[in-house]
Amino acid sequence: MRIGMGYDLHRLVPERRLLLGGVHIPAPFGEDGHSDGDVLLHALIDALLGAAALGDIGSHFPPSDPAYKDIDSRELLVETMKLIHEAGYRIGNVDATVILEKPKLREHIQEIRRRLSADLRVEEASVSIKAKTNESVDAVGESRAVAVHAVVLLLRR
Amino acid sequence: MRIGMGYDLHRLVPERRLLLGGVHIPAPFGEDGHSDGDVLLHALIDALLGAAALGDIGSHFPPSDPAYKDIDSRELLVETMKLIHEAGYRIGNVDATVILEKPKLREHIQEIRRRLSADLRVEEASVSIKAKTNESVDAVGESRAVAVHAVVLLLRR
Amino acid sequence: MRIGMGYDLHRLVPERRLLLGGVHIPAPFGEDGHSDGDVLLHALIDALLGAAALGDIGSHFPPSDPAYKDIDSRELLVETMKLIHEAGYRIGNVDATVILEKPKLREHIQEIRRRLSADLRVEEASVSIKAKTNESVDAVGESRAVAVHAVVLLLRR
Repeated sequence: MRIGMGYDLHRLVPERRLLLGGVHIPAPFGEDGHSDGDVLLHALIDALLGAAALGDIGSHFPPSDPAYKDIDSRELLVETMKLIHEAGYRIGNVDATVILEKPKLREHIQEIRRRLSADLRVEEASVSIKAKTNESVDAVGESRAVAVHAVVLLLRR
Repeated sequence: MRIGMGYDLHRLVPERRLLLGGVHIPAPFGEDGHSDGDVLLHALIDALLGAAALGDIGSHFPPSDPAYKDIDSRELLVETMKLIHEAGYRIGNVDATVILEKPKLREHIQEIRRRLSADLRVEEASVSIKAKTNESVDAVGESRAVAVHAVVLLLRR
Repeated sequence: MRIGMGYDLHRLVPERRLLLGGVHIPAPFGEDGHSDGDVLLHALIDALLGAAALGDIGSHFPPSDPAYKDIDSRELLVETMKLIHEAGYRIGNVDATVILEKPKLREHIQEIRRRLSADLRVEEASVSIKAKTNESVDAVGESRAVAVHAVVLLLRR
């Protein structure tokens, strides 16, 4: 059994779409970034790679590589799960908190969980997504950024 | 066995009491918030709910609900533990870091642990509370906010 | 089996060396602090102590104690591992993310892992170190500070 954690933060800019776990959240801004900027998937990928001691998202999918420009981060997640399986692990459970000032995520959480459990090929009961604001302080609280903290437990296959 | 994490941040304002784990810490400010603002209990509740994939504190105890105005967060913790037990889990151990610039928490840590272990109904050896400052930077470092990161391990009952 | 987490942040100042996991990273600044300021080792020590419910780095190695002025934090890590072993635990695995705007850590990660696994006396496969920037926002994003989040899983010896 192994533990992993992931953290990611992206700036919010008007010309992009807000993607969380592969789900488009209607908002007047979205995550900046070389890929699609899905901050939840990026934190989750880092937690998975960290638990298996397989490096991090930047070492596997370098932002300097044009192959990953605007890429759907769900493809990176699928690629990551292949690495996890090849290393002999499967997911026990994952838990994450999305810190975003607005819009409210409550009504989208269930769809994010459903999508993630499908992409991770685990049951929904193994995937938890929580939402928080940053109470108006710092970059996240001022809606200039969105951040995610994630943890994961991996089991031997 | 399941893993969960919780993060919470509250702004510090002069007209409120500073509560951490149900313990009142003498200070010229306290946590803003709809409930009593106990940032440690809130992060812990989120970690517990996340580990069991039971939603988050906002989904169970919505701040828009007048029933939770100024409520003692220990009541929310007790309610959360009922949900955890009903889902078939018990606490393995919990660990948290309170990030607060001042006052120093050192002398209060033991009382916080004692209170929490009583409320969680686990032995003190299963509850760890740590303290950090944010070295004068950002909202927490400037004493405009207090933040907590918590993790929890749940076992099958 | 027990879980622990650690967080640390140090300001970056020109007159100090940048140390991460005992490895000197060439940079025009380093971590401020009473000890050598190794933010990665400090977060890791807190995660280890937290998992074993043995207090925190400040309770064992108080910054007010002149004995710890400019001390090599690897000595504190060795001391911490003694406490962990005496309490009947050994490391399952550790995972951490260093959040630093610049310089890029990619080329140093392997040396940091090698050094840490030697100091922790575990195989490298049990030690994961990841790197992130904070996308130019807040103190870390503006290169005024470096932060680390770490998690650890402890097993009964």
